[in-house]
Amino acid sequence: MHPKLDYHMTTEEFRKAGKEVVDWIADYYDWVESQPVVPAVEPGDILAQLPPLPPQKGEPFGRVMSDVDALIMPGITHWQSPNFFAYFPSNTSFPSILGEMVSAGLGVQGMVWKTSPSCTELETLVMDWVVDLLGLPARFLSTGSGGGVIHDTASSAVLCAMLAARERITKGSGNAKGVPANLVAYTSTQAHSSVQKAARIAGIGDENLRLVDVDASFAMDPAALRRAIQEDLAAGKTPFFICATVGTTSSLAMDPIQAISDVLDESVWLHIDAAMAGSAAVCPEFRDMHAGIEGADSYCFNPHKWLFTNFDCSCFFVADRNALIGALSILPEYLRTAEHAAGAIDYRDWQVPLGRRFRALKLWFVIRHYGAEGLQSHVRQHIELAKEFERWVAESDQFDLVVKRSLNTVCFADKRGDQATKAILDKVNASGKLFASHTKLNDRYTIRMMVGQRTTELRHVRTAWERFSEAASEYRKG
Amino acid sequence: MHPKLDYHMTTEEFRKAGKEVVDWIADYYDWVESQPVVPAVEPGDILAQLPPLPPQKGEPFGRVMSDVDALIMPGITHWQSPNFFAYFPSNTSFPSILGEMVSAGLGVQGMVWKTSPSCTELETLVMDWVVDLLGLPARFLSTGSGGGVIHDTASSAVLCAMLAARERITKGSGNAKGVPANLVAYTSTQAHSSVQKAARIAGIGDENLRLVDVDASFAMDPAALRRAIQEDLAAGKTPFFICATVGTTSSLAMDPIQAISDVLDESVWLHIDAAMAGSAAVCPEFRDMHAGIEGADSYCFNPHKWLFTNFDCSCFFVADRNALIGALSILPEYLRTAEHAAGAIDYRDWQVPLGRRFRALKLWFVIRHYGAEGLQSHVRQHIELAKEFERWVAESDQFDLVVKRSLNTVCFADKRGDQATKAILDKVNASGKLFASHTKLNDRYTIRMMVGQRTTELRHVRTAWERFSEAASEYRKG
Repeated sequence: MHPKLDYHMTTEEFRKAGKEVVDWIADYYDWVESQPVVPAVEPGDILAQLPPLPPQKGEPFGRVMSDVDALIMPGITHWQSPNFFAYFPSNTSFPSILGEMVSAGLGVQGMVWKTSPSCTELETLVMDWVVDLLGLPARFLSTGSGGGVIHDTASSAVLCAMLAARERITKGSGNAKGVPANLVAYTSTQAHSSVQKAARIAGIGDENLRLVDVDASFAMDPAALRRAIQEDLAAGKTPFFICATVGTTSSLAMDPIQAISDVLDESVWLHIDAAMAGSAAVCPEFRDMHAGIEGADSYCFNPHKWLFTNFDCSCFFVADRNALIGALSILPEYLRTAEHAAGAIDYRDWQVPLGRRFRALKLWFVIRHYGAEGLQSHVRQHIELAKEFERWVAESDQFDLVVKRSLNTVCFADKRGDQATKAILDKVNASGKLFASHTKLNDRYTIRMMVGQRTTELRHVRTAWERFSEAASEYRKG
Repeated sequence: MHPKLDYHMTTEEFRKAGKEVVDWIADYYDWVESQPVVPAVEPGDILAQLPPLPPQKGEPFGRVMSDVDALIMPGITHWQSPNFFAYFPSNTSFPSILGEMVSAGLGVQGMVWKTSPSCTELETLVMDWVVDLLGLPARFLSTGSGGGVIHDTASSAVLCAMLAARERITKGSGNAKGVPANLVAYTSTQAHSSVQKAARIAGIGDENLRLVDVDASFAMDPAALRRAIQEDLAAGKTPFFICATVGTTSSLAMDPIQAISDVLDESVWLHIDAAMAGSAAVCPEFRDMHAGIEGADSYCFNPHKWLFTNFDCSCFFVADRNALIGALSILPEYLRTAEHAAGAIDYRDWQVPLGRRFRALKLWFVIRHYGAEGLQSHVRQHIELAKEFERWVAESDQFDLVVKRSLNTVCFADKRGDQATKAILDKVNASGKLFASHTKLNDRYTIRMMVGQRTTELRHVRTAWERFSEAASEYRKG
């Protein structure tokens, strides 16, 4: 009865097509270094090449892959190029790609334990591994009262942390009745936009999110935090949440967790957003940034940024899993299981969505393939390369270091001002030889050079520096 | 300078390992039918086999894959088995798996247009294709004032719809100041738990979410909705959002969109959650369920449920994209681009997270490979099989149809009551021969049989029926 249609790929056809795609991926990594990192297309260029309506009849897979080459690749920004230094690395690795393949092949759901026990239990294991790998406090282990879960992004993690905090302070009445108007949250002026987005989503509102001043290194000033809290308390407000950042988006600045923690009483939920910088903690010598983390209620870092694991993979840890589950759990009849009743973990209660992919596989593959030592070696290499770049900037008479290098991130600007800096960055990026992005620090237009691609070597960083220097010289002449 | 470490998989090693994984996936699909659908493990069994600490040294990939076979596979619930009839299908297909592979290989980010133009533009195209494929209203097209975006799940979509509605009714003051206490939302008693979760997250609260009564077919009663709205208005409340369900989770009941729309004035945002059933609209003969959809502000269905596309892939459409973007957009300096200023789509403003995978690829691969006719053929086949199953239930003297079949979903129960029904379901599921799940309808314990796996044929459905009948006979004897 099952229709044997010619547009239904058989297992044997998949073996052939799948192996061609594996070679296509391998060829991509052999080829990507030679390509302009940012494609020379304008908005609408890609869309204009594609047919506006879906096909009625199926098409052979070979034709689809030809179109990927001809129509899609010309509009790809090459994040995996060794010459990509923009935003954050979002690096990947072959073991991670293989993990994604296995996950896609199995096509299982990890929403509750029963919907695939291995999906839940491997995630629990790998999250506990990560606690060890990064030297995080034991309170985040699933073997105690805490635990970790893989979210899509740090944006979702900070939202869930804020919701757990909201329900902890309101004793559940936020979920029941809506959000009282007196709650106040804190983060620094340098925090990621996701904290503000979370405050909006969670019904707190911009006016109840304090952006605390930072010091000269762009780290949160604990004295300013203390003043803000005291003012809010005096005004009858209820401080309930703070997000401290370990590695800010603009300059990878490190908020002082211990000093911040000292300012807070235990009614305020302390969340640590280490989305980018957290990966560096695989190396013991970089764990100073986590000093004081024992006082945190939750912590997040993204292996999909700097730990060779495909997006999406954001590790979110809580010290008290019941606070998180209490805020997010709803148990309809169709998801009731005996195992839930017996205390098995149902990760749907640890996140916004219900469904979940088997994301633990790729992280497990990466950690096992590289081992702690392999991961350390790569992270150290990136930081060494950034150090070299920082030295060249410091010795140059064209550029200023806008702030001291933090780990793998160098922030610099032309001595002549914003117009020159912007022109230089635009020119270098337009060359296609590399891609770096910008920010503003104390209102100064600043180039951010972040070293973190798996295949980036000294020669790539040196070439980048030469391009910046040349562009600066040419700007002077122009 | 780059360390040539033996735990750094080379491109050539990836070619070999990748092809082995392709064969592993193909072998899985050849093998899965023979396996118990639900594994015979208890909570903790899988975890107990795994080492509690991560390795210091890297390991060869072959050892990792051996452990997948030995330690992970025994705890997998086989969603892709032709004998899987539980929850929702979450079906996949080989073209979709290939799309996931290409996406994982490229490792690009689609958060803003510039971070990979093709990622954004292919998504825009494929969402417009879906409007045509499902016969949705033109107001959801990106070529007008609307547009579609791929979310992870329908839970995230309903949250974003509710946030857009909240900001529309409060003219942005929800984001600015927090949520006023007078807002009220509506959905039916049969709606998915994600609506309640969204109301909690968005600061509305359970007490401000009305669960409207349903009729005998478990569809929302528009008269009851009208009464609820009138009562709320009389009490000084402000109705702002309603979620109507096209295909409820328990029984695939269809809320009457047109009648609901007629009750509402335009200040109330009408969201349609067609997560499961929407895929059936690829066949024109099943589009009656969408009658009245021209009045909807937003619509969501999940190709990852019943359209052969790997989770996660939830298609979310809005009629006024500016209402959505207005609710969710925050533009920090480090993400400002000239293209954004010129009006290019930045999908980060259409969702909760910032980062995004290249998910449009797999959906594009699926639609092109199968074509509209191929997708129709499979969906019709599933519905025909469910019809057969319904006929057997209706003709049986052991079981009742608890409600008329809806599309591919048959809800039935033992005539002797809940204890018998539960015992029968437990026995059948424990046999490993198939997996179906349960719900409660009018408080009656009910077996849900949902037919939607890509490889499910008549013989699988027939065997399932035989197992249920046998279990019922044995229960009688017992």
